[in-house]
Amino acid sequence: MKISFKNDYSEGAHPAILQALVNYNDDQQAGYGEDMYSLKAKELIKKKLKSDQSDIYFVSGGTQANLIVISSILKPYQAVISATSGHILNNETGAIEATGHKILGIETADGKLRPSDIIPVLENHRNIPHQVMPKLVYISNSTELGTIYQKKELEELSQFCKENNLYLFMDGARLAQALTSEINDLNFEQLADLTDVFYIGGTKNGALLGEGIVINNPELQQDFAFNIKQKGALLAKGRLLGIQFLELFKDNLYFESGHNANIQAMKIKNFMTEKGIQFLSDTSTNQIFPILENSVIEKLLENFEFYVWQKLDETQSAIRLITSWNTKDYATDKFLEKLNEIL
Amino acid sequence: MKISFKNDYSEGAHPAILQALVNYNDDQQAGYGEDMYSLKAKELIKKKLKSDQSDIYFVSGGTQANLIVISSILKPYQAVISATSGHILNNETGAIEATGHKILGIETADGKLRPSDIIPVLENHRNIPHQVMPKLVYISNSTELGTIYQKKELEELSQFCKENNLYLFMDGARLAQALTSEINDLNFEQLADLTDVFYIGGTKNGALLGEGIVINNPELQQDFAFNIKQKGALLAKGRLLGIQFLELFKDNLYFESGHNANIQAMKIKNFMTEKGIQFLSDTSTNQIFPILENSVIEKLLENFEFYVWQKLDETQSAIRLITSWNTKDYATDKFLEKLNEIL
Amino acid sequence: MKISFKNDYSEGAHPAILQALVNYNDDQQAGYGEDMYSLKAKELIKKKLKSDQSDIYFVSGGTQANLIVISSILKPYQAVISATSGHILNNETGAIEATGHKILGIETADGKLRPSDIIPVLENHRNIPHQVMPKLVYISNSTELGTIYQKKELEELSQFCKENNLYLFMDGARLAQALTSEINDLNFEQLADLTDVFYIGGTKNGALLGEGIVINNPELQQDFAFNIKQKGALLAKGRLLGIQFLELFKDNLYFESGHNANIQAMKIKNFMTEKGIQFLSDTSTNQIFPILENSVIEKLLENFEFYVWQKLDETQSAIRLITSWNTKDYATDKFLEKLNEIL
Amino acid sequence: MKISFKNDYSEGAHPAILQALVNYNDDQQAGYGEDMYSLKAKELIKKKLKSDQSDIYFVSGGTQANLIVISSILKPYQAVISATSGHILNNETGAIEATGHKILGIETADGKLRPSDIIPVLENHRNIPHQVMPKLVYISNSTELGTIYQKKELEELSQFCKENNLYLFMDGARLAQALTSEINDLNFEQLADLTDVFYIGGTKNGALLGEGIVINNPELQQDFAFNIKQKGALLAKGRLLGIQFLELFKDNLYFESGHNANIQAMKIKNFMTEKGIQFLSDTSTNQIFPILENSVIEKLLENFEFYVWQKLDETQSAIRLITSWNTKDYATDKFLEKLNEIL
Repeated sequence: MKISFKNDYSEGAHPAILQALVNYNDDQQAGYGEDMYSLKAKELIKKKLKSDQSDIYFVSGGTQANLIVISSILKPYQAVISATSGHILNNETGAIEATGHKILGIETADGKLRPSDIIPVLENHRNIPHQVMPKLVYISNSTELGTIYQKKELEELSQFCKENNLYLFMDGARLAQALTSEINDLNFEQLADLTDVFYIGGTKNGALLGEGIVINNPELQQDFAFNIKQKGALLAKGRLLGIQFLELFKDNLYFESGHNANIQAMKIKNFMTEKGIQFLSDTSTNQIFPILENSVIEKLLENFEFYVWQKLDETQSAIRLITSWNTKDYATDKFLEKLNEIL
Repeated sequence: MKISFKNDYSEGAHPAILQALVNYNDDQQAGYGEDMYSLKAKELIKKKLKSDQSDIYFVSGGTQANLIVISSILKPYQAVISATSGHILNNETGAIEATGHKILGIETADGKLRPSDIIPVLENHRNIPHQVMPKLVYISNSTELGTIYQKKELEELSQFCKENNLYLFMDGARLAQALTSEINDLNFEQLADLTDVFYIGGTKNGALLGEGIVINNPELQQDFAFNIKQKGALLAKGRLLGIQFLELFKDNLYFESGHNANIQAMKIKNFMTEKGIQFLSDTSTNQIFPILENSVIEKLLENFEFYVWQKLDETQSAIRLITSWNTKDYATDKFLEKLNEIL
Repeated sequence: MKISFKNDYSEGAHPAILQALVNYNDDQQAGYGEDMYSLKAKELIKKKLKSDQSDIYFVSGGTQANLIVISSILKPYQAVISATSGHILNNETGAIEATGHKILGIETADGKLRPSDIIPVLENHRNIPHQVMPKLVYISNSTELGTIYQKKELEELSQFCKENNLYLFMDGARLAQALTSEINDLNFEQLADLTDVFYIGGTKNGALLGEGIVINNPELQQDFAFNIKQKGALLAKGRLLGIQFLELFKDNLYFESGHNANIQAMKIKNFMTEKGIQFLSDTSTNQIFPILENSVIEKLLENFEFYVWQKLDETQSAIRLITSWNTKDYATDKFLEKLNEIL
Repeated sequence: MKISFKNDYSEGAHPAILQALVNYNDDQQAGYGEDMYSLKAKELIKKKLKSDQSDIYFVSGGTQANLIVISSILKPYQAVISATSGHILNNETGAIEATGHKILGIETADGKLRPSDIIPVLENHRNIPHQVMPKLVYISNSTELGTIYQKKELEELSQFCKENNLYLFMDGARLAQALTSEINDLNFEQLADLTDVFYIGGTKNGALLGEGIVINNPELQQDFAFNIKQKGALLAKGRLLGIQFLELFKDNLYFESGHNANIQAMKIKNFMTEKGIQFLSDTSTNQIFPILENSVIEKLLENFEFYVWQKLDETQSAIRLITSWNTKDYATDKFLEKLNEIL
C-alpha cells in the first residue's frame, strides 16, 4: 500500500475521538444538537474564545458551513467577495450560486485578500441597482494555497470591512494548521473580535466529520438554527458532533493535531529547501507545493500518492503534498529517504 | 435518569458499527465516497436488491436526502405530491420550497397515499401554465403515523404513477421498521421495481448518521453526484457512511435492528390493547399512539420521557411512544410495570 | 363576435392612456424608471395617499409584483400566510415557492383572512427550528372571490399583524374595484397606514400593463430597486409605466374605471337577484358568480363568453362574469335581454 | 433640452407601433399571449425564419428573457459561459445567479466568444463533481461593445457547441443593429439553424417594450410557458407584445429601424475617423466609443448627453455614443457641427 500525501482526510478519526464516541454511546440524549455533549462543547469553545456573546453551531462539512453561513447573511441581491483560489469559487459545484448569490472573484498571488484587492471591486459596483451589492468578504485561513493571515493583516482587513459595511467570514477548514504555523501570531480568541463569523474545521483535523460555526456578530445570530435545518444540516444525532468537539477542545487536542500536520510538512519543506528545490508558494502550514523534475515525480509516485498540481514546462511540475494530524515520522522519513535516493 | 421513548435516535450507534469504525480507522482511503468501504457497501446493497442498474449514494440525514432527491428530479415548475403528514411538508423548515418547489398536500387518515387521493390533485392542476405541474409523489414507509404500505398498495400506486407520468419517491427513514413489521408483505428487492427512488434510513436504525439513496430509474441517475456536492452533502470522509452501511448490510443487522424496535413497540401495544386502551392509529411498527387519561400520563412522565402528541378532550390525550434498535426488554418491562401499577 | 365577460383585461387600454402615450412619445427621457413621468406619478400617488414616507415602484404585472415583494421581505426560512383562494397559492405556477418560500394556506369561505383564521397557523408553527416561521400575511382586495375588506376588518387584521410581528401585504390587482364598491368604507389613504406594502393594480383597470407597488413600512424600503432589477422587472422604458399611472391618477380616472366595472356587474347582479337567481358568494365588485341551470348556461354561451366556474350538481353550475372599466351599457343590456328571453 | 446619445431606449415607440396599438385597442382578445395578434406575429416570424419547428414567446425585457431562458435550460449544477463583458455578468444584478447558476466569465478584447476562448474553461472544469458543469454558451449580437458576429464565426461557434454538448444562446437585444451592420453577412434565418435559442430585441429597436424569444432546439421547447408564468413574465395583455412584433415584422420595420441606428452612428464614426480620432473598439453598429480630449468632452456635454465610458489617462477618455431607430439627421448633424467647431 502506498503512503498517501493526497489530503488530510484520508484516515478515520483521532483515536481519542473514537474512544469518546464509544464511551458515551449508550447515553440517551435529546436530538438535533440539544444533547449535553454539544451544549458542553459550545460552552467550552466560547470560554476558550473569551467570547460569551458568540453563538456556536456544529455542521457536517465545509461546503455545508459555507453555503449556510453565506445564504443566511446575504439578501438576494448581495454578493460575496473571494479570492479566485477560494474554495467556494471553484471547488463547491456552485453551492453558493445555488443559494442565489454571485461570487466576485479577485486574483491574488498568495490566496489572501487585502483591502487594496477589494477596493477596486467596490468601485466597480456602484451602478445601482444594475449590479449586485458586494456585502461579505470570504477568506480562508490557512488558505487553499497553504498561506496564513498575520495578525496585522487580519486586523487591517477587519477594520476595512467595518468601515465599508462589509461582513467578514473566515473559512477555517484548516484553522488549526493556520494557528499553529511557526509564523503565526494570531490567537484563537482574536478571531471572535476580528471576524463576524468563522468556523473551526474538524474534518481536516482529526474528526470523523464536523465544523463548528462561530457567529460573533449578534446581528447575524437571530434564528440561525432555521437555516441549518432548512439546508438539511441538522443532524438528528447532534451528539456525534458534540462529542467530537468536546474531545478536540477539552484539552489541547485540536491544536496539537494541527501542529503535527505542520511539523511534518515543514520537515519535508526544509529538507527540500536544503536540496535547492523551489516551491510554487511559500507556505508554513500542512500544504507544500514543491517544483520537481517530472522524472523525479514519476519515481516518487511508485511509492507514494499525491497530486501533480500544475505543469510548469515540459520537464518540471509542481506537486501538492499534504500532511495531517495522523502523519507519522515514519511516513515522512520514508518519503525523504526515497527522495534523497532519487536525487 | 428517566428512560426515554421520545425517539429512535436518542443513543449513539449499534456497538457493531462503532467497532467497525474502530477496526478500519487507520486505513488511508480516497475521499468523497470513493473509499473502498462505500464502494463495497453499494455493491452489497445492489446485490441484496437484485438490482444491478440501481445507483446508490450515501448522505447524512433524511431532510438532506429529501431535498437533494426532489430538487435533482424536478424542473423549476414541477411540484411534489405528499400526504399532509409527510415529513417534508411540516417538519423540514420548508427545505423543499427552499429549492424552489411547491408541495401539494393531501389529507389522509393514515398518512398513506392511494391513487384515489392523487387523482383530484391532478384534475385540479390543468390550467396550464398558470399552475405548477404535479410530477413527483412522495411517500414514507413506514409513515410518520407508524403505518406501512402493503405490497398491493405499493404496486397500485407505482402503476398509477407510471400511467400518469409521475415519479414515485419513498422516504425510508424508517424502512427497516416497515419491512420487518409483522403485517408487512413487501420484500426489500421489490422496492427497486416499484419506486423510482427510495432511501434506506440509517440514522433511525442504529447508525451514527446516514441514509442510502437508491436511484432505480436510469433517467434520474445522470450526474446525480453533482447535486450531492452542491447541497453540501458530500462528506470528505465518505468512509464514515460506507463503513456503517457495510456493517448494517453485510449480515442482517439492518433488519434485525428494525425488528427489535417493532417487537418492543408491539409488546407495549399488546399489553395496552388487553387493558382496553385505544390508539390514535393502528400501527404495526415502532411508533404507537395510545390514548390515556391525563392523570395516567402525568404519572408515567415521572419515570419516563415521551411526547404528549395530541389533546383529545379535557381528560384524555394521545401520547407517542417510540422504541428503537436499542430498546431493551428491561425498559419496556419497566414501563409496563409502571403502567399496570397506575391502572 | 361574442361579447366576453371572461375577464377585465380583454381589451387594450383606456383611450386617455393611449392618448398620453402618443402625446409624450417623442420626449427623450432617462431609462429604468428615472424618467420624469414616473417621478411625477410617484409624487402624485404619495400625495393622494398623504404618505410622504411611502416608496413607490412600478412593475409590469401582478405575479411579478407578488414575487418581488414577498421575496424581498422574507428571510429564507420565513413563510407567507394566505387564503387558499389567494392568487399566489394556486394561480401563479409556484412563483413564490420558486423564490424559496412556503405558502401556508387557510381555507376561508369568502376569500378573506381574519385574525381568528391566522391564530391556529401561528400556534401550529412553534416547533423551532423544524418548521418555517410564518412572517407575512398576504391578502387581496378585492379578493379572488369578488369580496372586499371593510375598514374595521382591515384595522383588526393590521393590528393583529403588528402585535404578532407579521407583515401585512395587500395584493391590489383589483384595488380600484374594491375601493369603489358600494359597500366599501375604506379610503385609499388608509392603506398607507394599515398595510406594510400594497399594490395598485393597473392591468385589470384600464392600463396596458402595470402595477404600482407602495412600500409604507420604512424597514422594507431599503435597496428595494435591486430586487426589481434582479427579477427582470425593471423596464428600460419605465416611462411606459409612469405615463400610464400619471394618467390614471392625475384626475380620478383610476377610481372612475373601477367604479364602471362595479356598476355593470351590480346591474347584472340586481337583475338576477330579482329573478331569484342565487350566487356562489355575495360580491360587491366586478366579479359575480351566479348559479344557473346548465341549459341556461348553454344558451348564454351562444352569444357570450364567460367561464363556467364550478359544477354544483347534475343540472346546475356557477358561472363567473367579470365586467371591466370598458364594459358598456350596451353589453350588459344585451346580456340581460338574452337572459330574460331564456328564462 | 440637450440631445441625448445615452442609449437607444430614450424615447417611446416608433409611431407605426403606437398607431397599431390605437387601431386594435377595442378588440376583445384572450389573455396571456393567446390573443390573435401574438399568434399572428409568431407565425409571421417563423415564416421569416423559415423555421416552422421553432417556438416563440414574447416577454417584456432583456434581463427577463435571459433569466427565463437560462434557468429553464440548465439543471441546478450546470453553468453558463459568457464573455466578461456579457450583459448577464455585470449588468443584471446577479439575475442568473439568483436562479441558482454560476456564470463562468471569459475576458475577450472585443466582447465575442470563440471556441479557443471556451476550450480552457472546459478543461478547467473536469473535477467531477466538485465543480459546476459548463453547459450553455451565452453570446450577444451585437455585443455590449458594439461588435458583431460574422457568419463564419457563428458557424464555428455553433459547431463547437454541438460537438461539446453545449447549448448556444444568443442575446439579441440589439439583433436588428447587428443584422443591418454594413459588415454583417448573417441572415436572420440562419439564426434558427445556428443557435439553440436566441431572442429578437424590441425594446432597443423601437418597441415600447418586448423581446421575442425563439427556441429552435425542440428539446428545450417542452413546457416553456410554465417558466414564463413562474418568473412573473406572462403579461395578462399579451396583445401589447403581439401587436408590436406584428408591426415590426409585417413589413420590414424591424430591420429598417436597426439600419437607421447604424447609419447615424457610422456617420459620426466616419467624420471622426477623418479627423484622426481613435476608438476604443472597432464597431459597425449603433454604439461607438471615440477617444477624446477631456476638454473636448466637456464642451460637447454642454449641448449633448452621453456617457463618459472610460478614463484613459489624465487628458483623454473614451465616451460612448448610442444612436437609435429614432435618431434624426438633425441630431447627428448638430453633434458633428459642434464637434467640428470645438476641434
